[in-house]
Amino acid sequence: MYDGIVQDLIDEFGRLPGIGPKSAQRIAFHILQTPTFDVSKLSRLLGELRERVRFCDLCGNVSEQDRCAICRDPRRDQSFICVVEDAKDVSAIERTREFRGLYHVLGGAISPIAGIGPDDLRIAQLMQRLADGTVTEVILATNPNLEGEATATYLSRLLHTLEIRVTRLASGLPVGGDLEYADEVTLGRAFEGRRVL
Amino acid sequence: MYDGIVQDLIDEFGRLPGIGPKSAQRIAFHILQTPTFDVSKLSRLLGELRERVRFCDLCGNVSEQDRCAICRDPRRDQSFICVVEDAKDVSAIERTREFRGLYHVLGGAISPIAGIGPDDLRIAQLMQRLADGTVTEVILATNPNLEGEATATYLSRLLHTLEIRVTRLASGLPVGGDLEYADEVTLGRAFEGRRVL
Repeated sequence: MYDGIVQDLIDEFGRLPGIGPKSAQRIAFHILQTPTFDVSKLSRLLGELRERVRFCDLCGNVSEQDRCAICRDPRRDQSFICVVEDAKDVSAIERTREFRGLYHVLGGAISPIAGIGPDDLRIAQLMQRLADGTVTEVILATNPNLEGEATATYLSRLLHTLEIRVTRLASGLPVGGDLEYADEVTLGRAFEGRRVL
Repeated sequence: MYDGIVQDLIDEFGRLPGIGPKSAQRIAFHILQTPTFDVSKLSRLLGELRERVRFCDLCGNVSEQDRCAICRDPRRDQSFICVVEDAKDVSAIERTREFRGLYHVLGGAISPIAGIGPDDLRIAQLMQRLADGTVTEVILATNPNLEGEATATYLSRLLHTLEIRVTRLASGLPVGGDLEYADEVTLGRAFEGRRVL
């Protein structure tokens, strides 16, 4: 419909999650018609995202260094590890200010339908982190849906061979939902009410 | 919540129309976690959009040259000019394949509340295009809302001093809506049923 670049940009924006053709068109024209919009900044950040942002060697959270800011922070309680599916979940839990321990990002959840098994997740790395006995409690904060529950059950069985307290977030969270979209209060209460598995 | 670049990119995406903080976060993580997403292409297109895309000298449509593809096309009927508020509306009308004339983009609509008067629109340029007598009909395709109707009324009074047929798109369009979001059939019928003002 448009000359080259405009249509190309609309197509590229349309590839992003949650952006349909109309939104993509609106965004492209907004950028074109808003002189104050800093296009070079967005352009530069996109390049830097791929070049400089990676995942923490230890916990799998996003980081611009080998270790993420949370793993580097000496004030964090080294005896607690909160296991989440995704790096976005770390951010959601941090907003509650309920938890001062460390994290472990699995990189997904067990899902036979999607063909994701335990070996596709960062479970071996978790076991390695637990080997030296520093960690006394592992909090399973996978999503309260089918895949998340299956993953929590799998991990709790695996971890019961070690002398570690294994807890699960309280089911104050709406079942079938996504941890990422829970509000701070609900997520905070779920932390408080976590139960021993 | 995140280290520098990720949060900066989330903030930048959040500045775009229709993208809230959650969507911005989802987009940033999608780009980070999808190796097949061509980040350099999006980055390059953003730069080129500002550098190379401008507005047609004649009609005000988007173009990578001084004249847009429609104004350059000798097969277009030079005796019809369809007046629209925005370049996005040109694309919407083109999709109907009902109209084979030329366009004139006003760059908005008269709105006393937003402080936009006739002098802020490309009306002088329209009058200049009509001066040589080539154009025999001007179709007013401003949005069927308060501002668009006011603009159409203003223009129809102005154009009645010239010997030119002035028409308005039929009110098959849902009133209060946005021309940009009309489906092809509705917009095509509105073209067929246009009435003399």
